[in-house]
Amino acid sequence: MQRKLRMGMIGGGKDAFIGAVHRLAANMDGLIELTAGALSVNPEVGYESGKMLFLPDNRIYKNYEEMLHAESKLPADEKIDFVTIVTPNFAHFAPAMLALDLGFNVVIEKPMTLTLEEAKQLDTKVKETGLTLCLTHTYSGYPMVKQAKQMISEGVLGEVRKIIVEYPQGWLSTLSEREGNAQAAWRTDPSKTGKSGSMGDIGTHAAHLAEYISGLKINKICADLSIVVPGRAIDDDGNVLLKFDNGSNGVLIASQVAAGEENALKIKIYGEKGGLEWHQMEPNTLIVKWLNQPAQIYRTGNGYIGSFAKHNTRTPGGHPEGYLEAFANIYRNFALTIDAKLNNQKPTDEMLDFPNTEDGIRGMAFIENVVNSSNSDQKWWDYKI
Amino acid sequence: MQRKLRMGMIGGGKDAFIGAVHRLAANMDGLIELTAGALSVNPEVGYESGKMLFLPDNRIYKNYEEMLHAESKLPADEKIDFVTIVTPNFAHFAPAMLALDLGFNVVIEKPMTLTLEEAKQLDTKVKETGLTLCLTHTYSGYPMVKQAKQMISEGVLGEVRKIIVEYPQGWLSTLSEREGNAQAAWRTDPSKTGKSGSMGDIGTHAAHLAEYISGLKINKICADLSIVVPGRAIDDDGNVLLKFDNGSNGVLIASQVAAGEENALKIKIYGEKGGLEWHQMEPNTLIVKWLNQPAQIYRTGNGYIGSFAKHNTRTPGGHPEGYLEAFANIYRNFALTIDAKLNNQKPTDEMLDFPNTEDGIRGMAFIENVVNSSNSDQKWWDYKI
Amino acid sequence: MQRKLRMGMIGGGKDAFIGAVHRLAANMDGLIELTAGALSVNPEVGYESGKMLFLPDNRIYKNYEEMLHAESKLPADEKIDFVTIVTPNFAHFAPAMLALDLGFNVVIEKPMTLTLEEAKQLDTKVKETGLTLCLTHTYSGYPMVKQAKQMISEGVLGEVRKIIVEYPQGWLSTLSEREGNAQAAWRTDPSKTGKSGSMGDIGTHAAHLAEYISGLKINKICADLSIVVPGRAIDDDGNVLLKFDNGSNGVLIASQVAAGEENALKIKIYGEKGGLEWHQMEPNTLIVKWLNQPAQIYRTGNGYIGSFAKHNTRTPGGHPEGYLEAFANIYRNFALTIDAKLNNQKPTDEMLDFPNTEDGIRGMAFIENVVNSSNSDQKWWDYKI
Amino acid sequence: MQRKLRMGMIGGGKDAFIGAVHRLAANMDGLIELTAGALSVNPEVGYESGKMLFLPDNRIYKNYEEMLHAESKLPADEKIDFVTIVTPNFAHFAPAMLALDLGFNVVIEKPMTLTLEEAKQLDTKVKETGLTLCLTHTYSGYPMVKQAKQMISEGVLGEVRKIIVEYPQGWLSTLSEREGNAQAAWRTDPSKTGKSGSMGDIGTHAAHLAEYISGLKINKICADLSIVVPGRAIDDDGNVLLKFDNGSNGVLIASQVAAGEENALKIKIYGEKGGLEWHQMEPNTLIVKWLNQPAQIYRTGNGYIGSFAKHNTRTPGGHPEGYLEAFANIYRNFALTIDAKLNNQKPTDEMLDFPNTEDGIRGMAFIENVVNSSNSDQKWWDYKI
Repeated sequence: MQRKLRMGMIGGGKDAFIGAVHRLAANMDGLIELTAGALSVNPEVGYESGKMLFLPDNRIYKNYEEMLHAESKLPADEKIDFVTIVTPNFAHFAPAMLALDLGFNVVIEKPMTLTLEEAKQLDTKVKETGLTLCLTHTYSGYPMVKQAKQMISEGVLGEVRKIIVEYPQGWLSTLSEREGNAQAAWRTDPSKTGKSGSMGDIGTHAAHLAEYISGLKINKICADLSIVVPGRAIDDDGNVLLKFDNGSNGVLIASQVAAGEENALKIKIYGEKGGLEWHQMEPNTLIVKWLNQPAQIYRTGNGYIGSFAKHNTRTPGGHPEGYLEAFANIYRNFALTIDAKLNNQKPTDEMLDFPNTEDGIRGMAFIENVVNSSNSDQKWWDYKI
Repeated sequence: MQRKLRMGMIGGGKDAFIGAVHRLAANMDGLIELTAGALSVNPEVGYESGKMLFLPDNRIYKNYEEMLHAESKLPADEKIDFVTIVTPNFAHFAPAMLALDLGFNVVIEKPMTLTLEEAKQLDTKVKETGLTLCLTHTYSGYPMVKQAKQMISEGVLGEVRKIIVEYPQGWLSTLSEREGNAQAAWRTDPSKTGKSGSMGDIGTHAAHLAEYISGLKINKICADLSIVVPGRAIDDDGNVLLKFDNGSNGVLIASQVAAGEENALKIKIYGEKGGLEWHQMEPNTLIVKWLNQPAQIYRTGNGYIGSFAKHNTRTPGGHPEGYLEAFANIYRNFALTIDAKLNNQKPTDEMLDFPNTEDGIRGMAFIENVVNSSNSDQKWWDYKI
Repeated sequence: MQRKLRMGMIGGGKDAFIGAVHRLAANMDGLIELTAGALSVNPEVGYESGKMLFLPDNRIYKNYEEMLHAESKLPADEKIDFVTIVTPNFAHFAPAMLALDLGFNVVIEKPMTLTLEEAKQLDTKVKETGLTLCLTHTYSGYPMVKQAKQMISEGVLGEVRKIIVEYPQGWLSTLSEREGNAQAAWRTDPSKTGKSGSMGDIGTHAAHLAEYISGLKINKICADLSIVVPGRAIDDDGNVLLKFDNGSNGVLIASQVAAGEENALKIKIYGEKGGLEWHQMEPNTLIVKWLNQPAQIYRTGNGYIGSFAKHNTRTPGGHPEGYLEAFANIYRNFALTIDAKLNNQKPTDEMLDFPNTEDGIRGMAFIENVVNSSNSDQKWWDYKI
Repeated sequence: MQRKLRMGMIGGGKDAFIGAVHRLAANMDGLIELTAGALSVNPEVGYESGKMLFLPDNRIYKNYEEMLHAESKLPADEKIDFVTIVTPNFAHFAPAMLALDLGFNVVIEKPMTLTLEEAKQLDTKVKETGLTLCLTHTYSGYPMVKQAKQMISEGVLGEVRKIIVEYPQGWLSTLSEREGNAQAAWRTDPSKTGKSGSMGDIGTHAAHLAEYISGLKINKICADLSIVVPGRAIDDDGNVLLKFDNGSNGVLIASQVAAGEENALKIKIYGEKGGLEWHQMEPNTLIVKWLNQPAQIYRTGNGYIGSFAKHNTRTPGGHPEGYLEAFANIYRNFALTIDAKLNNQKPTDEMLDFPNTEDGIRGMAFIENVVNSSNSDQKWWDYKI
């Protein structure tokens, strides 16, 4: 790269959780600089947040429309290269569409939109504009997730037969949305979070992980969503039986009321010859199990690791990378792709390996199908997209 | 106890897997001696097996009928106190009924019978005779399983909200029943194993464990059984959504084609205040998770452990007990109960804590309901017993 | 075997810890029966203990001399085949010598004697009599310990370069010998336990494990023993630098005041090509690490396991065996060896793989050398035997 | 902070390992910008490296002298605030002294200098100038290390009794310094790395960690350094017995030839009431063991965590932070301290919690004392500083 890319941020004011994570991830590799921001629906909070992030006054905007229009008129060597949208789910679509219309590439927090319909429109817009949209399904940024995907695609497990993915969290075990927890408040409000709570917030991650690693697509489900905590307005827990397009079966469990769990996303994939197991909370380890040989412990940063994991690792074996590095991998690959396109080069497969609108459509489809399946008395629900 | 109890074994000749396990478990505490045997359908194998076990010639029988009738005529201070039935599933019911009719207590390998109907008849017979029947759901014999049960019954987790129990094995990942594996042969033959393969062999253990620890009863299910290995005659894999009688939900996964897995039974139970996690392959540890406090690592053999776990532990903390000790706990409690009854004493709750015909009925009901649910297009299947 | 071997026990009355463990181990495989006992220095306790173990009155003896003399006069098909000595350390030597003199084989709890000199005399006596003596260094009975030994002897690690063995316990963190803890009382009394507390009780296990697995011999040490708990009469903690006879180095740590530890014996052995790691508290797993390949998880009961581990395993993979099974392996191999000798057959290498007087001498030498080294200002202490 | 701090880097050109790590750590929080660099002794490599890092031509310097003199003449709102020295050990002292003389704060990779004498001079210079020097002992930047320190300082373990710290790596298991491995080459060359290989490179980290967490100081040692790989010019392995200033004992093990190990730094500290265990490769977990209660699993990002760990954490529980975040904590605290001083404010205790010249002196003293002890026949070597 010749220069750092310039980022404008929509949402992510002080005290927001995921906005800060995006900045940490974007900062890490020194390829991106935060240049502009419309950081809050409250202009005062937005200004204060911008100052804390060392933005000059003239790059702190009152709202995203102002930012996008103003930045679009700046000279090419000043204006932002892309926007990052880290608002609650309901406020993803409009700024993303406007950004694309005005020629900006887009990073967007998952789930991509509030509805499947919006997701499809966004996909169409991306294809029309030729711009790049990156969806931050963080967990696919981990090197050992990429290692798992690469090993399966190379056939080391044979045909995939079964996938178990579980994502238990405990942070909504009480009615914290009524106790002043702002994160809980919007994430349990259907008007802001969408049709499902547990499945929108974390189930989509689990579904994405299963499809990303296995290379398969879910095509039938049988879902059971629950409101476990009395008084909550939206599901906080769900269990889903899965069928994949190669005929294999699976289970997806997502819960926000698994008391005592932190963020315990785990996946196990079994094939004809062996199985893989990965735990997000110990992300640098991938256990590979074999039918008649000892299981193996694959670890990031070692010489035997494949090209995709290697491209997404910064440190030698035993120097643990974590969630922020996984997130940074997505930003780095996005940045390298943008840079390649700016320079009329073809991005490598490794660079292009970040979630995009197709993943976003599948994520929204997952939410809608799971909700519909859960509401149905029919056992198997054919996936509709 | 005044003397060792005398055991007669039905099945379990040389090369049988589970018969050897029963003998190890019965031997361990020195409370039981193997006194007689009808160890094989093949009398030569039976005789040879008896000699290897140091049985005198006159206590090695050609078949179970011969043994039960002959033993019933021996003097009280010579004849066996109980029989252990370790034949394949289809050959549990008849010897158990005859043994009870002739006045012998019974230990029986799970699943208790071939059908639910047989299970009910056996239960009736036990109640009529006043004799004791013990069903060897091994995993409920582990001290930390009992600790989990005791903690939940004492309310430390509050109301139970969610149960995830998974039981992956990989030993049937190939069509080994066609390659001379005798264990695989009968366990995949519906005439010998019953209506379900994966659910009869291991799913019943998982269901028993969930109900045993939680104190809840499954009352609705949605099951998806599969024959994963082409050419197999019976399911080797299944995923089941669960509803319990307190309204909580759960998932049960049992697979014999999870390539690379050994015997990886795990259970997680979440309540209002925290959660419990137990892994059979590291059985001396129970992780107890809390909403706002550090998780705790409960370990067998420590002073802070409850009365049930304590009663079922032989060694101090850090001296691992395993599968055979869990099995031996069931035999020991059965023996202590028999002894108490022989001496007109009331067994303690700890002694009585072994699976019985009620568990056997629930196990057979589980199999039948899961098969019926799997065959149905209806989403939720009401448990029928 | 044609019949069970008959065991006479010296020590191990009710409430004794290690005597009960020996009985569980001897019982398990059904190859040994407890036939006689001199179970306590207190004849009343001895009698009561014998009755609890279902011994007939005429085989419950007042003391070991009475038992050994009486048994030696019984007919061959009645008298005991061997004695097991489970008294405190100071009371090992005399009964062992008498038993050998009267023609009985011997099992003896470690450390073998009170002094190195006694150990040498016992070794001489064993060689003179041609009888078999078995020393219960339990940890060498674990299958994965045997697997480690076999792999190293086959050269998979190349030359061994470094050994780290640590054995932390916490049970003597307070002055419990003054609070009525009988185990603590004799084990911290130099007249009963010998010259060292921590090294006699657990350091010898660690040293034996290191030499057993590696096939190397310690030949230089630098020891630092401490009395950590004020008021204690003997060391409760020690750290030792090691040199082995191939020039490699090592560290041995044994502590009884590592508060919060149970029985956390661990060993790591590094060679030119890789390393091995084994933890006693998760004994069915052996981690094998490689220079440029993923580490492997060797597990008991799998097909890829070597002949020694296989011979010492009762259950399939994933059915955990533990401390009692490791102990039972020592008894079983001892019994198979005795039986082979009784039948003028040559025991296999696998049968003979139990600790003997040579290990006992090395154990006592370890204690004496460590104490001498600790008392010396000289850095390296040449091992004297 | 009002603005980002400006960093000049000495060393760390392309292909250098630790320079890249420093940049990632400095970038992450958006508080520091790389403004200038003298990135290589080879000016061409330095220029190319500077361009890859987007430095303007006039801030890419040929050598550190040029950079420091030129920057010192720039206006206050342009010139760098501090330099980061990431050269091999022998090239730390001179640039650090010049930087301080010219008024720049300093970050310096460990070990601080080549000799203890240099360390003392640097400490004197820092005190004379009133500037801030930060030594990057990375591992003290981990939140759970800080949690351990805070818990011990608050007395939860009672008096500390024993410390076991081990740091096994395997990367020097072969003579890779002769095979073109540049990292191996300088780290095994005494003229560039200093008096000890294993102890300078990793033993100092282990010693720092032990003293940092426990609050104790090593005051006596007995060291055994080895050259394990034939042909190597400097020790690659060492074992050290420790005595601390409160009379407690310990063991420190550092090895670069522990084949198959990555970067497996672990520490266990035992006190009167319990113990702590932390593993660098799973850094978000701190196990706290208790005498008579279940062990606890402390985890980063939870509400029950102390002020120091909290200040050094960016993500909620279950979103793992790693090595780079630990490193970034050191940079952030250094930056916050510099900023506070620039604004005549008093840094908080949390901000000031990064290693400084006192740690640097102790690190160099550790190396020299260990080497001297290893060369001595005397058992205990009194620490000399």
